[in-house]
Amino acid sequence: MISLYKVGGNVVDNPEALERFCEEFAALEGPRVLVHGGGVRASQVQQALGQEPVKIEGRRVTDAATLEVVTMVYAGWCNKDIVARLQHHGCNAIGLAGCDGGAVTARRRPPKTLSDGVTVVDFGYVGDVTPASVNREFILRLLDAGLVPVFSAINHDGAGQLLNTNADTMAAAICVALGAKLFYCFEKNGVLCDRNDETSVIPTLDPAAYQRLKDEGRVADGMIPKLDNAFRALRDGASGVVIRNAARLLESGGTELKL
Amino acid sequence: MISLYKVGGNVVDNPEALERFCEEFAALEGPRVLVHGGGVRASQVQQALGQEPVKIEGRRVTDAATLEVVTMVYAGWCNKDIVARLQHHGCNAIGLAGCDGGAVTARRRPPKTLSDGVTVVDFGYVGDVTPASVNREFILRLLDAGLVPVFSAINHDGAGQLLNTNADTMAAAICVALGAKLFYCFEKNGVLCDRNDETSVIPTLDPAAYQRLKDEGRVADGMIPKLDNAFRALRDGASGVVIRNAARLLESGGTELKL
Repeated sequence: MISLYKVGGNVVDNPEALERFCEEFAALEGPRVLVHGGGVRASQVQQALGQEPVKIEGRRVTDAATLEVVTMVYAGWCNKDIVARLQHHGCNAIGLAGCDGGAVTARRRPPKTLSDGVTVVDFGYVGDVTPASVNREFILRLLDAGLVPVFSAINHDGAGQLLNTNADTMAAAICVALGAKLFYCFEKNGVLCDRNDETSVIPTLDPAAYQRLKDEGRVADGMIPKLDNAFRALRDGASGVVIRNAARLLESGGTELKL
Repeated sequence: MISLYKVGGNVVDNPEALERFCEEFAALEGPRVLVHGGGVRASQVQQALGQEPVKIEGRRVTDAATLEVVTMVYAGWCNKDIVARLQHHGCNAIGLAGCDGGAVTARRRPPKTLSDGVTVVDFGYVGDVTPASVNREFILRLLDAGLVPVFSAINHDGAGQLLNTNADTMAAAICVALGAKLFYCFEKNGVLCDRNDETSVIPTLDPAAYQRLKDEGRVADGMIPKLDNAFRALRDGASGVVIRNAARLLESGGTELKL
């Protein structure tokens, strides 16, 4: 069974949290893939370069200058920093963007109507991926060779254009293509019944219970697209989905999704 | 016979020249590796971030902030831009830094006495590589799988630290480790007898003729370390060294070194 871990910017951009995550990830066993974010640092570099980060409904509008920054930060600094740390801890990691080896091809997102039903936004150099756009054989060959692929969410369209992709959806697409088990790792212990109480982790969550949590306002804004995405991955063929703390990879725990 | 191409910042940082290079590189046949620079863009990004690039005897002094920039620019933007272009032209490229798959390990350069014999400089996070620090088996496995490795000159020390490496010496080290033929590609047609006349290419150059060119002042400052490095690679086991125009890969020509 292949495990696919997704870790977000709140961990990647915090050197202590990242080091702990890498040490634990390296100590895991079995074939595994890591997909990482890095959005906090990307916004900092944009601002240092005098660019104003623009996000609409949580997604970064990516003009040419922004594409260069996110490629530098995600595929460059974050990716190689993670790989060097994993190598140090004895994990034979190989850092990749979707273009490398033709691993993942994305489709540039057409202008999109927002949830208000009126505003149409062109997100620029943003690419969407599906399980069908993942080069499963290439990733399996790397795993067979004992390598641990570490992906940034920078992809290409196959016609020479790099595209910025949401790391959660990229993780889900690779996971479904591989029939892997998905571990969404972040700074909380799982889906919480009371979001101010880290001990209130809900051990299993099905769509009906998720709907109740939403109705009661117990899941926060950022968790909703993450959970929607996670349930979709489970329906589409992921062999399991767990949401857990990035600092506790070696323990059991977290929230397991069920259909 | 494996071919190893090195292309520098003057080509990588010029979109038209880079596109032409990638189109021709993709049309080449046989197992091949690319090592690229990107120093012009790195200096621009440093300046845009309010850092002042410091170079001593042609080498960039690399503090922590500079290391982040060169990793972002070389291993991030330049590397993925090149890979996406090569993929578009049908070449199954895979972009790598030395840390990826443990491909190349570097040794942090100790403080160094300059050519004045007095000044001692700590270059910071700068790493030196030798043919022995190249993971030959890993690179051969990629080539056997039909992949074309594309390396930025960012390496690691195996203890979690990334290190900035000179791309010419990294190319030479990989070339010697593989027993490959080295092609140094740049914006001129080869080593010129008259540096203002692009038709005055010297077809073959041996150490005695090189010494005469230096004595007569015909080779310029930047060419001397490049040629010293190239002759060293040839002595150490490269199966050939050619210096040629990055825009004319598919033609014969350029300067071939002989011992």
